[in-house]
Amino acid sequence: VSALLARTGDPIAAIDTPALVLDLDVFERNLASMAAWAAARTIRLRPHAKAHKSAAIAQWQVAAGAIGVCVQKLSEAEALIEASCASGSCLDDVYISNEIVDPGKLARLGHLVVGSPSLKLSVAVDSGLGIDRLAAALTAVGCLERVAVVVEIDVGQGRCGVQPTQAGGLARQVVSHGLRFAGLQAYHGKAQHLRSAAEREMAARHAAQMARAAQASVTAVGVSCPFITGGGTGTFYFDAATGVFNELQPGSYLFMDADYERNELPSGVPRFEQSLFVKAQVISRGVSHAVVDAGHKSHAIESGMPRVLDRDLEFRTGGDEHGLLHPRLVEAPKGTGAVRAGDPLPQIGDAIWLVPGHCDPTVNLHNHYICVRGGLDHGVVERVIPVDARGCSS
Amino acid sequence: VSALLARTGDPIAAIDTPALVLDLDVFERNLASMAAWAAARTIRLRPHAKAHKSAAIAQWQVAAGAIGVCVQKLSEAEALIEASCASGSCLDDVYISNEIVDPGKLARLGHLVVGSPSLKLSVAVDSGLGIDRLAAALTAVGCLERVAVVVEIDVGQGRCGVQPTQAGGLARQVVSHGLRFAGLQAYHGKAQHLRSAAEREMAARHAAQMARAAQASVTAVGVSCPFITGGGTGTFYFDAATGVFNELQPGSYLFMDADYERNELPSGVPRFEQSLFVKAQVISRGVSHAVVDAGHKSHAIESGMPRVLDRDLEFRTGGDEHGLLHPRLVEAPKGTGAVRAGDPLPQIGDAIWLVPGHCDPTVNLHNHYICVRGGLDHGVVERVIPVDARGCSS
Repeated sequence: VSALLARTGDPIAAIDTPALVLDLDVFERNLASMAAWAAARTIRLRPHAKAHKSAAIAQWQVAAGAIGVCVQKLSEAEALIEASCASGSCLDDVYISNEIVDPGKLARLGHLVVGSPSLKLSVAVDSGLGIDRLAAALTAVGCLERVAVVVEIDVGQGRCGVQPTQAGGLARQVVSHGLRFAGLQAYHGKAQHLRSAAEREMAARHAAQMARAAQASVTAVGVSCPFITGGGTGTFYFDAATGVFNELQPGSYLFMDADYERNELPSGVPRFEQSLFVKAQVISRGVSHAVVDAGHKSHAIESGMPRVLDRDLEFRTGGDEHGLLHPRLVEAPKGTGAVRAGDPLPQIGDAIWLVPGHCDPTVNLHNHYICVRGGLDHGVVERVIPVDARGCSS
Repeated sequence: VSALLARTGDPIAAIDTPALVLDLDVFERNLASMAAWAAARTIRLRPHAKAHKSAAIAQWQVAAGAIGVCVQKLSEAEALIEASCASGSCLDDVYISNEIVDPGKLARLGHLVVGSPSLKLSVAVDSGLGIDRLAAALTAVGCLERVAVVVEIDVGQGRCGVQPTQAGGLARQVVSHGLRFAGLQAYHGKAQHLRSAAEREMAARHAAQMARAAQASVTAVGVSCPFITGGGTGTFYFDAATGVFNELQPGSYLFMDADYERNELPSGVPRFEQSLFVKAQVISRGVSHAVVDAGHKSHAIESGMPRVLDRDLEFRTGGDEHGLLHPRLVEAPKGTGAVRAGDPLPQIGDAIWLVPGHCDPTVNLHNHYICVRGGLDHGVVERVIPVDARGCSS
């Protein structure tokens, strides 16, 4: 039971609000720019589908040269594989870049592999228990060698992953079960959002050093370890420059968001543009503010409030279903107090375009992308695509 | 495409993670407690369905004595009415406690009314433009008198709603169109979360004074205004005590959350208990922390991090799909530095129960409620009910 917010051929003005709108012209430039950047280097591109949760977008990424996609959860893999197969072109190389330790989930993973003979599946591990259970689940369905196992190391994120010196022990445990050891996961999520390019570069170099140390730990126990995967939209150029990574996992480059916009970029790296928006509408006007019909049930705010596109207005939280637009205040000269600056308040009924604070969890709130061609002013809805893995966190 | 996280009859341990779990025993006590409280007073109960977005729960509220429900968005009304009718018992009294100004949406509202002959629908307005457009849309489908119009006043929230002195002008405009003027919306959202009972009582009294002033403004223009609706889980007892409100709109009382838990309660008011949880699972262990498989794609954090149930551990954000559990630190005596306190870290595979920071947007992230009977330790899944209006923000 979900209202369709627009139909193919609709003009921009007819898109119901709040809606997740994708500017296809910009999106395609981002897609091509990343693909061309990776193609010019000897590094594989495996974009992270946690950002978009869409089988169609995953297929476009593969068509543009990606080796496959990452996902963060088993149910994301299930949903994207099912939706891609239903559209006639199965995703056949999927990496679950996260730990799965639940026996029930691991049994599902085994069934997924057995049911998809051409699927290349890989999965991250960071514990002996996880490896033992994975081996048991795959043995139970007779496909121990179908899944490539990636040992995750903590390169500064402080979340999952073992210390580099522990990687060898886990790799040996992987191969002792007859499982296929693929290499190392070395993703530094926090590094992506460090504001200065110098800080991000330092974090990326640190991650690469940790990955090298882990690689040494693995080879020291007699296991070959040629493969290291990691990197994101904020650091991929620095990661590549270290020469350590064989594969990169950026996700947000397709859409961008208000958080990534705040990153200082070094020269000579791809400039991605904002392609993802929430279209909202003014429903109420006070003396000092206007109210739009989009709150944090329409966009994620854990990385900051949305930016109001093309208007010098400040978005303040109005709760689950509302946003408050205020004129930006600036300090007047000589301490005469704050005065209004920027644009006048919009009128009731006006469309307002929001740049989400963080694209991934914003996408996860919506059922569809309304994909437009020709810009946000005079464009037309070219297609509506589902967020296939929306809510798939299990 | 969404994996079912549990089936009727499953033991608690079999519920996949992360899952939205409703403890039915507690939930039913909350439901009955609120219903009994309202029944003992001459005040109508119209719970806010934005909190649960479930037709089944709305029907249980009505069965327990509620006059109907509030919703915040038109698409919520559409989804809940459709789902309730599909289950054989149509919701027949729905109030959209929010402004709708878009002509396309208002046309849908007209169709909803025409298509549901027994539906009592009311809607809030706070602008002349909104009233004109509502009248035009209802005139177009010949049902001008089918919708009850509620003028919203701002009683301290600083969001939607006109000043009390402007209520009369809008009421006159409503009746001048031949629309049915029903009364006033006077909800103070911010007041619900003031921590001390004294602050909430003061805010509730202020809201009631504003509502009285607006009522006077309406009667001064010759329009009868006997009806005022408002109130929430944090203030309903104070709102009722003012004698101003005819109807109350609490929503969170069914579930509670970590934010509402922090409210100081006065004596003699219903004590609601936590009935809504996110079941998570430890997937990784570091030296100083454990990692669970639930991040802010599984629970809303705009009102604070989740509380870890029955364990003295601190939940820290781990991003979209992870949560970090840390031992609570306490200051050691005589300035010897912070030391660990509380519980030891859980092990990989352990189930962790989270009390969400804010129930409404947490529910909106999930497709189903896993409803359990017999408690979270040894209970059984009694039923799985859909979040019918999930994502319905338009």
